[in-house]
Amino acid sequence: MRVGETWYRSIWREPGSNLVRAIDQTALPHRLRFFELATVDDAVAAIRHMKVRGAPLIGATAAYGIALALAGRDDEASLERAAEALLAARPTAVNLRWAVERMIRILAGAAPGERVHTAFAEADRLCDEDAACNEAIGVHGVELIRGCADKTGTTINVLTHCNAGWLATVDWGTALAPIYRAHDEGIDVHVWVDETRPRNQGAALTMWELMNHGVPCTLIVDNAGGHLMQRGQVDVVIVGSDRTTATGDVCNKIGTYLKALAAADNGVPFHVALPASTIDLSATDGGAIPIEERDGREVLRVAGEHEGEILDVAIAPAGARAANPAFDVTPARLVTGYITEHGAGPDIIELSGSDARSEACAG
Amino acid sequence: MRVGETWYRSIWREPGSNLVRAIDQTALPHRLRFFELATVDDAVAAIRHMKVRGAPLIGATAAYGIALALAGRDDEASLERAAEALLAARPTAVNLRWAVERMIRILAGAAPGERVHTAFAEADRLCDEDAACNEAIGVHGVELIRGCADKTGTTINVLTHCNAGWLATVDWGTALAPIYRAHDEGIDVHVWVDETRPRNQGAALTMWELMNHGVPCTLIVDNAGGHLMQRGQVDVVIVGSDRTTATGDVCNKIGTYLKALAAADNGVPFHVALPASTIDLSATDGGAIPIEERDGREVLRVAGEHEGEILDVAIAPAGARAANPAFDVTPARLVTGYITEHGAGPDIIELSGSDARSEACAG
Repeated sequence: MRVGETWYRSIWREPGSNLVRAIDQTALPHRLRFFELATVDDAVAAIRHMKVRGAPLIGATAAYGIALALAGRDDEASLERAAEALLAARPTAVNLRWAVERMIRILAGAAPGERVHTAFAEADRLCDEDAACNEAIGVHGVELIRGCADKTGTTINVLTHCNAGWLATVDWGTALAPIYRAHDEGIDVHVWVDETRPRNQGAALTMWELMNHGVPCTLIVDNAGGHLMQRGQVDVVIVGSDRTTATGDVCNKIGTYLKALAAADNGVPFHVALPASTIDLSATDGGAIPIEERDGREVLRVAGEHEGEILDVAIAPAGARAANPAFDVTPARLVTGYITEHGAGPDIIELSGSDARSEACAG
Repeated sequence: MRVGETWYRSIWREPGSNLVRAIDQTALPHRLRFFELATVDDAVAAIRHMKVRGAPLIGATAAYGIALALAGRDDEASLERAAEALLAARPTAVNLRWAVERMIRILAGAAPGERVHTAFAEADRLCDEDAACNEAIGVHGVELIRGCADKTGTTINVLTHCNAGWLATVDWGTALAPIYRAHDEGIDVHVWVDETRPRNQGAALTMWELMNHGVPCTLIVDNAGGHLMQRGQVDVVIVGSDRTTATGDVCNKIGTYLKALAAADNGVPFHVALPASTIDLSATDGGAIPIEERDGREVLRVAGEHEGEILDVAIAPAGARAANPAFDVTPARLVTGYITEHGAGPDIIELSGSDARSEACAG
């Protein structure tokens, strides 16, 4: 998507080389910085320290991580070690496992001597598919926004939580894809952006994305969305998902559940945009999804820019204890509908592309 | 309440003088600083800039503000100007109006030449009553916590939002009064403290209060409470209120409504602790309460301590727009019960002390 006059992806391979580059999301919104991934350890560290984040982008980074591991040493032990390290980097997003398993599957059929080339080509393909998937999510999702606009004839206010934009994917984003498309098609759309503590992906990333693309947007604290819904200032909620069960329970950034409750209480439609690859057909109970518990320091300190310098400040008394669950689960009963690359509607199985889901959006 | 080995109130008059002192809450939790209120303008500024905050403490500060105005110039014009300036300082808390009107009423009956003395004495009385009210709230509220403890036999996890502790009142606090009493009586209680963006009163003030008094507590982001309730980690929610209608709708810090929804969805009791003075018997619709819209900079920047210095950092891109509603309204249907100085239960009128409410806790 657009940053000023330049179009970017969040991760890409330098043409004709084994060098992967990505946007360092820990420096945004204050600096647009890029970093190189030259080894699988670089990929693991980037995922763990959230230089890259967002379920689809984690998957893409893991795919390149496998390729980089083989470029370093092309044997089974190297592949196994890489897969293990990548899977351990973050526990909740299902795309990570999906991407690693896809790489292992394709490599099993590759000729010796062709494996490095095969791995990079497959990672490239996975990225292109992700971009195409998300573009398709935009095509299906924009109809929901257009429907609101046709009905009210005024600005459509969309509330979103966390960052499910192009920075969370390879391009377009999931929750933001319909919004970008609506804006590009001339629909009068405005976005309420949840700041999304503790890591402020809404304030730092979603605001940065939307402002750079020229989409009107307003930052709010995570506490404010319910009040705005009560006062009729939200037409629709669209969020992403890190893992969705076959029964439609949605695991997403901590706090999503609270917005879903408020949407249900106020009759505001609540939609979840997701590539079918984030659907975990083996899971039928959202309550059983493992929830990553992150370092309490993310709660106790807030990072930002002060007089040109990026630093963090303590917001609690010295010695304070903090808990930091990173995700929550929104039960299917609170979800109005899902948007995948296959369409939009209330039936998650229908939208999953069933068994063929991993190849579903290759076109 | 206790800070180390010393007992404090949040505001007090120096014995035998017209000098009022208070804790500067904008410096907490990093510094324990006091400031003087020598004029009504000091009182207005302290309320507006939130050196003092919390509905009951705002009322107490306003009462001293009236006395300070008369100490400066004892005539009707001075009284009227003071009342007007104080009422305009913050629009939502009903105690502010209640305290100012009480002062005007008492002064109408005072002999000329006695007015300054009468005003300070009445402000002192209002403070003593507030402390007594809140202590009574603790006495009634502790039974709810004891009830939980008797049932489960394990640690009772209370979730609270914002700061409704002794710093929000003259002493004891409202929502925290039952918690302090439970702790002092040896009940095994632990508090989940919502950070409470944008001003982080939970992280800065509630954590500081509880830690100084020795009550076990854990800071969480505002997004986390719903998830903790889903996983059975919250036994009861207790919050304060800035204004409660005769129908039981509760206006409190932004985000309270989201926690009430989560409590209802998970069968967790949701209690509101409030002095009867915050009940607005003339209001029957919470949706009609004016909601203060504060400066967007509170959302765009976060203050804290960095290497011994207190400063603020920008968390959003330069030029970002923010909205900052300070309160929301929790409908009565989501409230399990109310706790006032008169008792605890589901009927707000019964707990209001009806017409006699302003004198209700003079004992």
